[in-house]
Amino acid sequence: MDLLKERLATVSDLDSASSVLSWDQQTYMPAGGVAGRAEQRATLNRLSHEILASTEIAQLLDAAGEPEPGTDTAAIIRLTRREHERATKLPSRLVAEISRATTLAEPAWEQARAASDFPMFAPHLEKILGLQREAVEHLGYEDHPYDALLDRYEPGSRKARLETMFDDLKRGTADMVRGTSAHSEEVREAPLHGKFDELKQEEFGRMISTSFGYDWDRGRQDRAVHPFCINFGGPGDVRMTTRFDPDWLSPALFATLHETGHALYEQGVDPAYSRTPISGGASLGLHESQSRLWENVVGRSLPFWRHFYPRLQKAFPETLGSADLETFYRAVNAARPSEIRVEADELTYNLHVALRFELEVALIEGSLTVSDLPDAWNAKMKEHIGIVPKNDADGVLQDSHWAIGYFGYFPTYTMGNILSLQLFDAALEAQPGIFDDMEHGEFGVLLGWLRENVHRHGKKYEPDDLIERATGRPLDVQPYLRYLGEKFGALYGIS
Amino acid sequence: MDLLKERLATVSDLDSASSVLSWDQQTYMPAGGVAGRAEQRATLNRLSHEILASTEIAQLLDAAGEPEPGTDTAAIIRLTRREHERATKLPSRLVAEISRATTLAEPAWEQARAASDFPMFAPHLEKILGLQREAVEHLGYEDHPYDALLDRYEPGSRKARLETMFDDLKRGTADMVRGTSAHSEEVREAPLHGKFDELKQEEFGRMISTSFGYDWDRGRQDRAVHPFCINFGGPGDVRMTTRFDPDWLSPALFATLHETGHALYEQGVDPAYSRTPISGGASLGLHESQSRLWENVVGRSLPFWRHFYPRLQKAFPETLGSADLETFYRAVNAARPSEIRVEADELTYNLHVALRFELEVALIEGSLTVSDLPDAWNAKMKEHIGIVPKNDADGVLQDSHWAIGYFGYFPTYTMGNILSLQLFDAALEAQPGIFDDMEHGEFGVLLGWLRENVHRHGKKYEPDDLIERATGRPLDVQPYLRYLGEKFGALYGIS
Repeated sequence: MDLLKERLATVSDLDSASSVLSWDQQTYMPAGGVAGRAEQRATLNRLSHEILASTEIAQLLDAAGEPEPGTDTAAIIRLTRREHERATKLPSRLVAEISRATTLAEPAWEQARAASDFPMFAPHLEKILGLQREAVEHLGYEDHPYDALLDRYEPGSRKARLETMFDDLKRGTADMVRGTSAHSEEVREAPLHGKFDELKQEEFGRMISTSFGYDWDRGRQDRAVHPFCINFGGPGDVRMTTRFDPDWLSPALFATLHETGHALYEQGVDPAYSRTPISGGASLGLHESQSRLWENVVGRSLPFWRHFYPRLQKAFPETLGSADLETFYRAVNAARPSEIRVEADELTYNLHVALRFELEVALIEGSLTVSDLPDAWNAKMKEHIGIVPKNDADGVLQDSHWAIGYFGYFPTYTMGNILSLQLFDAALEAQPGIFDDMEHGEFGVLLGWLRENVHRHGKKYEPDDLIERATGRPLDVQPYLRYLGEKFGALYGIS
Repeated sequence: MDLLKERLATVSDLDSASSVLSWDQQTYMPAGGVAGRAEQRATLNRLSHEILASTEIAQLLDAAGEPEPGTDTAAIIRLTRREHERATKLPSRLVAEISRATTLAEPAWEQARAASDFPMFAPHLEKILGLQREAVEHLGYEDHPYDALLDRYEPGSRKARLETMFDDLKRGTADMVRGTSAHSEEVREAPLHGKFDELKQEEFGRMISTSFGYDWDRGRQDRAVHPFCINFGGPGDVRMTTRFDPDWLSPALFATLHETGHALYEQGVDPAYSRTPISGGASLGLHESQSRLWENVVGRSLPFWRHFYPRLQKAFPETLGSADLETFYRAVNAARPSEIRVEADELTYNLHVALRFELEVALIEGSLTVSDLPDAWNAKMKEHIGIVPKNDADGVLQDSHWAIGYFGYFPTYTMGNILSLQLFDAALEAQPGIFDDMEHGEFGVLLGWLRENVHRHGKKYEPDDLIERATGRPLDVQPYLRYLGEKFGALYGIS
């Protein structure tokens, strides 16, 4: 077992080093570093993969037998078996082909998006889709090929379950979406646009991150084109990035809250798990539940802004001096059908995800071709959101996920939204003072509950187990629907 | 040969990744990252070492035979044989221990220096020294244990040769040091002290780096406690750091010139050598020759300041408006016995180095203990420089080298000083217009000569060969003594 743990620590160190190189690439690396950095990261990833796929690991896993259930060691063995199987199932030729295809596809996607020219990207997507379908056959599945892809991001989840989840959501929000769409001519977001000095935005964001409980001795915040949170094998160094728009408050503010949510999860994992496979968040869905909880459930709530809005006004007296709390609260919760997922309100966000889920399932099972994808996208937009994008750049080309081979990733966004409420409700039941605390800018009790019931466990429990342990029941869409109904019912006078 | 080159590229990638992690640690890493970072770097260094020491590499080297002399391949084989021998001599346990010990020692040294508390650092130094002495026994040596350490930084050099070099220097400069010490009551440095806005300092430094020829698309400058230059396996990403004092111009200004010199060398290496053992500077002495050439021979010369001083005055009109060029030139060349090596004038700098060389020789051979080191330091300061530091922060704790395991490194500074003049004289002989160019802020011809005769060759030639090829003769202290004599003779009216 000691030797196995040593090998796994080496894997963790290689992966952490690769993450540091990725952080650097996205924050500070000069343009001249691109070629060398690609080689460095490919080498680190290859060495990590070689160890995980090795016969030595197979032998060490055999020798480990069946450790006492419920122990950390049992969890480490369980996850290592899964990672080893995954690593050996895919031929290294296929891994290399996927890596090469996505490396070529990403810049092609960027160009195609800039030119709003889907045919420019189509051959790359064809290639990637073919490789994903080939990978699925190697990985194996019980019910549906999509499950093999989903399992990488959300262990234990299934396509069939997601279909039920999205159906419940669509049914549960249809009236609300209709109701807010009737108000889509109203411009509620005005207070968020205007002059917002970047350094003051940064200072304000830092102040909120600090009050949420982010530990700056174990992290930092830098600027990057795409905001992200990253950690290096343990809770001691968990970094965030954001980007600032001097004329628009929302992007940096809510990205900061969002990434702080991810970071609080990683900073809260038991340090004893560092450099083992059970360090880090349990799944992408659970990770997203934390980011969405702090971004939306907390960060777009009235109690939160009762405390912070006077401070925000003080930071930007010229831009916000004349907007009262209620106006600002309505601004940060303006709901309206729109084209772009990352800018969507809480109500329509999951419809954007549902359409991507349905399309990628169809692509993987072969019932939809790449050449038919743009039309299918627009038809689904019309069906789910009620509008058709004015071009492919703002439609089928808007996300990078497929270009970098992330099939099966999108649904975790919606799982995160649903879980954010399920977990928040459980926290509120145990600690009814949470809303009072929020009005005073206090988040210690909420964070404490999340630490105790979610964060500290890292990957020790399977996502389904962790959800059940923390909330007493399996994934449940009802708390989220109730939350949306109450919030947008009040904001838009609908029910 | 292809397989060997592939393995060497993996070694290069691992080393480059370790360098990125080191850069990050010294610039942006939060305190909480220390423990994890130590493990990550230890793992990368261990894996790199394991490949270099492997029987596979031995077999590939055997199979490579003797390539045609003078080719790049011959140089790669020669250096790889040396690295393989060195790697097989050191057990990988020891390599990992050194890496871990130094990663922990560096922050401890920073704290100890801040508190001027040598005992706080002593246990770390004990540990590192013990590991260095263990390494020496594994590496082997002909004449003196110190040679085994020196060889890492300055292949082909020997302790005995350095003793002669330092004796020549001490003898050759004794009268000058006495002569300038007689003026030590004169305060010539006044113009360098005063209000110097940090951002303006940074901007001015960047302007000089740019005019020297530093390519910002292939590098960047950040802040660090100890200025350094670092690269990642090729000329595409060569970074510098510096530190700013808002009340004192010299530290950032001359550190920037110095690190730019290092960076120009790395940016000038043939890109075809990237990810091979012949990428990067030929030796530390040759590296230092480049940093000192740009910092001192160029950056403290009258022609240089004829061009740049009016620009500097314009950047800091309140502080420098009343000091004329001659006064400023005398200020940046003020010579006076002082405590800190990195701030020492050109005349006493090598005495600081001689002292460290003598102390580390004694530590390695065991004739001096760590607990006696502060007293020995102060005694040598009295002997060589004529003063005793007021505390350990400004004495034995001032340099990071020993904290990061760099024993045998210091003498390369003095070799660099000597070589900077030997190379500059050779460049001047070939291109007599260099001083005229300087007066116009033009450095292309000088850089071109260095690129052609030094930079582009990377590690292809052994240091002694490269020096002989570039200057027509072996390492020679006379040009440097002549330069010091002429410059300080004129500045201080001595001869």
